[in-house]
Amino acid sequence: MRAVLIPEFGEPDVLRLGTACDPRPGPREVVVRVRASGVNRADVLQRRGLYPPPPGASEVPGLEFAGIVEDVGGAVSRWGPGDRVMGIVAGGGYAERVVVDERVAVAIPAGVDTTTAGAIPEVYMTAYDAVFRQAALERGETLLIHAVGSGVGTAALQLARRAGARSIGTSRTASKLERAAAMGLGLGLPGGDAWDEAVRNTTGGRGADVILDLVGAPYLARNQAAIAVGGRHVVVGVPGGSRAELDLRSLMARRARIFGTVLRARSVEEKADLAREFTESVLSGFVDGALEPAIDRVFPAACAADAHRRMEQNRNFGKLVLVW
Amino acid sequence: MRAVLIPEFGEPDVLRLGTACDPRPGPREVVVRVRASGVNRADVLQRRGLYPPPPGASEVPGLEFAGIVEDVGGAVSRWGPGDRVMGIVAGGGYAERVVVDERVAVAIPAGVDTTTAGAIPEVYMTAYDAVFRQAALERGETLLIHAVGSGVGTAALQLARRAGARSIGTSRTASKLERAAAMGLGLGLPGGDAWDEAVRNTTGGRGADVILDLVGAPYLARNQAAIAVGGRHVVVGVPGGSRAELDLRSLMARRARIFGTVLRARSVEEKADLAREFTESVLSGFVDGALEPAIDRVFPAACAADAHRRMEQNRNFGKLVLVW
Repeated sequence: MRAVLIPEFGEPDVLRLGTACDPRPGPREVVVRVRASGVNRADVLQRRGLYPPPPGASEVPGLEFAGIVEDVGGAVSRWGPGDRVMGIVAGGGYAERVVVDERVAVAIPAGVDTTTAGAIPEVYMTAYDAVFRQAALERGETLLIHAVGSGVGTAALQLARRAGARSIGTSRTASKLERAAAMGLGLGLPGGDAWDEAVRNTTGGRGADVILDLVGAPYLARNQAAIAVGGRHVVVGVPGGSRAELDLRSLMARRARIFGTVLRARSVEEKADLAREFTESVLSGFVDGALEPAIDRVFPAACAADAHRRMEQNRNFGKLVLVW
Repeated sequence: MRAVLIPEFGEPDVLRLGTACDPRPGPREVVVRVRASGVNRADVLQRRGLYPPPPGASEVPGLEFAGIVEDVGGAVSRWGPGDRVMGIVAGGGYAERVVVDERVAVAIPAGVDTTTAGAIPEVYMTAYDAVFRQAALERGETLLIHAVGSGVGTAALQLARRAGARSIGTSRTASKLERAAAMGLGLGLPGGDAWDEAVRNTTGGRGADVILDLVGAPYLARNQAAIAVGGRHVVVGVPGGSRAELDLRSLMARRARIFGTVLRARSVEEKADLAREFTESVLSGFVDGALEPAIDRVFPAACAADAHRRMEQNRNFGKLVLVW
C-alpha cells in the first residue's frame, strides 16, 4: 500500500510517498481503507525526530484516519466491510490502510463525508477528553482556550458552546480571533497582551474555571493569575516551550489543578473507553449541526510536505487533512 | 474567655495568653468549650504575619479544636450540651471557646480522650481529603509522603496502610524515619538524597502513584521524575519554598496531575461535606486501633510559644497540642 514515509528526520521535504506493507487484522481488529488522514502537530515533531512512536506503533506518521472497513478479524462483532469509521491510532495514519482494535473505531455520523471525518478524531477527542472527562467543565463555567485557532482550539470552542459554557480564546493572529468569533467564541484576546487581566475582568474577578493549554511555558505565570478558585488547567501541547516557573503557593491558594495529558500513549482499553463515551456524548453534535470541523485545507497525500509547511508556519485556522 | 493572641507579628514570644470575647452561636452553630487545640504550621506563618485569616475568620490563631458542646443555636439538631466534638475552623482555635456550624463538628470517637482528639482534625482531614478524596489513592498503589514525620505525614502513612496502599516517606531527620518505620512506613528515604531514583527502583520503575507534598519547591523536579504514569501530586504545604521550574512536557508524557489544596479557605458547605465523609470513612479507625495520632508533646495553652518554637525547629515528630 501507499504511505507517507519519513526516510530521514528534517524539514517538510523529507516526507516521501512510498510503499509500506499492508496491515493484517488480529482477531479483534479491523482493517480500514483510509480516505482521509488528519495532520497534527505531533506529526511535525515526529518528522523532526522529536517525538518517536510509542513501542509497538507504526513508524509511519499519522494519528488519525477516516475511511471504510475493508477486512475484519475473526472475533470482530461491531463492524463489517463497507462500514464508515474514523478513529485515533498511535501511528500509521498517513497510509492507505490502518489496522485498529474494533473498540477504538467510531462510526462516521450520517451526512458527514470521509474527508470531513478525517478532521474529527484527534481534535474533538482530545478536546472532549481534556475539557469534559478530565477537567469536568460545567454549564455556566468559563473555558479559556489558548491557540483557539488550532484544530483542538476550534473543536473545544464548539464543544464548550454546545455544553452551555462560556469560551474565551487567545491567539497571536488577529484574523484567527475574528474567525473564531464567527464560530461562536465568547471573547477573543491577543496572545501577546496581558490577557490574564482581561480574563479576570470579564469574569467579574473570578477567573477561568478551565484552561485548555496548547501553548505551554510562556503562558504558565499568566495562567496561574487567570485561573479561578477550584480551576483546572489542562496541558495538551507545549509548542511555545516546556519549562517555566510554577508558584506552588498560588496553586494552593486557588486550589487549582494542572493536568498533563496525551492520547497517543494510552492503552487500547483507555482508548476504547474514550471512543465509547465520545460516541455517546459527542457524535450527535455532528448531525444536528452544533459541531462542524473547521477545515483549513485539504491536500492530496502526495503533498503532505505542503501541509506540514503550512502548520509549521502557523498559517492554518483549524485542520489540515490529507486525502487518498 | 482566655485565648492565645498575636499582639504583634514576630518570633514565638509575641504570643500572649489574653482575653477575647466569648462567641455566641448563630441558629445552626454550636459553642464548644475547648479542651485541646492542635498546633499547625499555618499558625506559625500567621504569627509571622505571612498568613492572614480569611475574611470573616477570627484574628485568634488556631485551625482546630476538641472539646465539649456548651451551647447550641435554635436550629441545631445534631448536638446538645455535653457532646464531645472536634473539628476544623478558619481561625480562633487557640481559645477556650469556639463557635462552628453544627455540620462541621465531628464526634470524638469513643475511647479517645479530648487531648488526643485535639491532634486529629487538621492532619487526618487534610491527609484524607488530599490523598483519598482528591488523589483517589487505591489499594495496591504507592503513596510517597514528603516530611513523613510531620503531623499530616504520620496521619497519611496510617491512612495509606489502612487502605492497603504502600507508603514511602522522606525526611531530612534519620530518627523521624525510624519512628515512621515503627508506625508502619513501608520505606524511608533521606530527604537530601536522590530519593527519586530510589522510588523508581523500589516500584519496579513505575514510580509513585500519589505524592503527598509537604515540602514544595526544592522537590518539584524530583517529584516529576518519581511520579508514575497517571500519578497525582497533591501540594499541601510549601515550607521549603514556593517557586520552582515545572517541565510541562514531562507532565504530559506521564499524564500526571498537580493539585494545590488548602482546607482553611473552603466554604462551610465544603467543610460540612468533608466532615460527613470523614465521619463515615475514617472515624472507625480510631476505635479499632488502625489510626492513632502521633502526639509529640502536649503544652499548657499558656506555653504556646514553646510549641511554636519546637515546630519551627522541626523537632516534633507528629503533633503538638495545647490544652486548656
